[in-house]
Amino acid sequence: MIKVGLVGYGTIGKRVADAVTLQKDMKLIGITGHSYDYKIEVAKMKGFKIFTTGDPEEFTKNGIKPEGSVEDLIDEVDVIVDATPKKIGRENKEKYYMPKKVKAIFEGGEKHETVDASFVAQCNYDESLNKNYVRVVSCNTTGLCRTLNAVNESFGIESVHATMVRRAADPWDIRHGPINSIVPVLELPSHHGPDVQTVLHDVNIFTTAMSVPTTLMHMHSLIVDLKKETTAEEVLDLFKKTTRVRVVRNAEMVRSTAEIMELAKDMGRLRGDMPEICVWEEGIGVKNKKLFYLQAIHQESDVVLENIDAIRAITGFKDGQKSIEMTNKSMGINGF
Amino acid sequence: MIKVGLVGYGTIGKRVADAVTLQKDMKLIGITGHSYDYKIEVAKMKGFKIFTTGDPEEFTKNGIKPEGSVEDLIDEVDVIVDATPKKIGRENKEKYYMPKKVKAIFEGGEKHETVDASFVAQCNYDESLNKNYVRVVSCNTTGLCRTLNAVNESFGIESVHATMVRRAADPWDIRHGPINSIVPVLELPSHHGPDVQTVLHDVNIFTTAMSVPTTLMHMHSLIVDLKKETTAEEVLDLFKKTTRVRVVRNAEMVRSTAEIMELAKDMGRLRGDMPEICVWEEGIGVKNKKLFYLQAIHQESDVVLENIDAIRAITGFKDGQKSIEMTNKSMGINGF
Repeated sequence: MIKVGLVGYGTIGKRVADAVTLQKDMKLIGITGHSYDYKIEVAKMKGFKIFTTGDPEEFTKNGIKPEGSVEDLIDEVDVIVDATPKKIGRENKEKYYMPKKVKAIFEGGEKHETVDASFVAQCNYDESLNKNYVRVVSCNTTGLCRTLNAVNESFGIESVHATMVRRAADPWDIRHGPINSIVPVLELPSHHGPDVQTVLHDVNIFTTAMSVPTTLMHMHSLIVDLKKETTAEEVLDLFKKTTRVRVVRNAEMVRSTAEIMELAKDMGRLRGDMPEICVWEEGIGVKNKKLFYLQAIHQESDVVLENIDAIRAITGFKDGQKSIEMTNKSMGINGF
Repeated sequence: MIKVGLVGYGTIGKRVADAVTLQKDMKLIGITGHSYDYKIEVAKMKGFKIFTTGDPEEFTKNGIKPEGSVEDLIDEVDVIVDATPKKIGRENKEKYYMPKKVKAIFEGGEKHETVDASFVAQCNYDESLNKNYVRVVSCNTTGLCRTLNAVNESFGIESVHATMVRRAADPWDIRHGPINSIVPVLELPSHHGPDVQTVLHDVNIFTTAMSVPTTLMHMHSLIVDLKKETTAEEVLDLFKKTTRVRVVRNAEMVRSTAEIMELAKDMGRLRGDMPEICVWEEGIGVKNKKLFYLQAIHQESDVVLENIDAIRAITGFKDGQKSIEMTNKSMGINGF
């Protein structure tokens, strides 16, 4: 049993905690909370042990007795998943994980330079095997890597030009925007392109990005110059058999990110999550070795699968394909 | 076993279908679909029998063989829940349910005049006992009735002035708005006031309404002139013990409809639903026999509970309180 501790119990952390409890080879030792809120109440309801990175008084006055500090949690685990906000992970590494010699997994808010390897399970599982510090890349980078890796292996990629149309804020987030404008990212390339190359080292990719007023999912528009000739039908078949990619169909009235989220709810997915990258069947086109496709990314959940596989990789489970199958099965993901 | 058929498989219909399958005293005989879409694919995945109100060809060409027509479904059931769009229910009553002599439950889009009784379980269960046609009132009316009934029984209501701030469209709905304005309802009173009186016959209520650009929940601002003196603490205690009402707290960082929805997701509720009417603890105030409170209504799910209880009432189950407890327990609703 791999003993796992969660540091940071937000959008990703709470999902990884639930996912760990579904794995037969893992045990969730506990989570940490920084301040008291409804998420902590739900963690208590689920019977999770709660440690704290903040003031214990804040918890006790609300009827929750913390089991100890983040250092107490570290003492009981084989691996920490650090899902704290951007840059806190790196601070935690230096302050806690290195001195305590505990392995740790970080999220996409941290830099590649902070870790030994960046990770997308179906692309480069082996690079993280037995490493000390691994970074699960961001939701957008994960989405790009999953589909581009499949395209690269089948048809060869000359170059990629992609536009990320990003959701403005997460569904629970009442502070961020925009709520009524489109905001371009004015750095070229956007960070997504270089970030893809931390996983797919030889893929020539250039990305631009913008934010739009929605909370549900991101959307990517991809233009890929291929080395080999192909057809839209062949690419469709490829995506249908690629793990953690779901082909959705306008013909089934899945015409929008809203309807993808509704589908996930109807399927009974916990929290209505859709961890698969969703590619529209009717949005795949090929013209003179140029491939076009549109994909939607559920920013809250796609990387949850990678976190579980990264736990196995970092603790020495050698078979990446087997890990992907175990994770998929536990989470009800089709097509592995 | 009460044999139930669902006609109309949209926002409410699909939820009622799932809820029926959770009741020990009910059996879902089948659902009807009008046209092929992802909801029908999920119904098939769940093993529901699919009947059709539309062209069977539309289903068969997509690999789904309908079990028959809506009339075939009616022949197999004790009661129909009709969750079709506004006005279709009344047409169905005349075209199918009356000639076939089947009992039917309608939703809030239909008029009170179409049925024998309008229904909110904790307010007037007995009025629907053994009736032929019953209407579960709209999500907003249900929300008003649940809290106002409790206030009326405890403190007596002189009059109510309430403002409904309504969500613009459901989360899956990509066609309706507004997405960037506030739209007042320019009829006084809005239909909600008179609609409340179809359930709480003696409550003097006047309502106004508007639509705002959000999909998650409605919000009501209520001003109630009471007959008896009380305090905010007493009202809080009343709402805490009122079934299907949930007190939420700013102190737990539940500051918005967005965070209520996130809480429901975290709790593991199917589709992230919150069928309880949510009243903010910090939003309850009393001044000189005037009571103020703010409540949020999950328009997609609150009436699902009433539909289940209405099925029992219409088929002769006498104990309304017991029905509420059975429904609550099956759906994981606290506080019954």
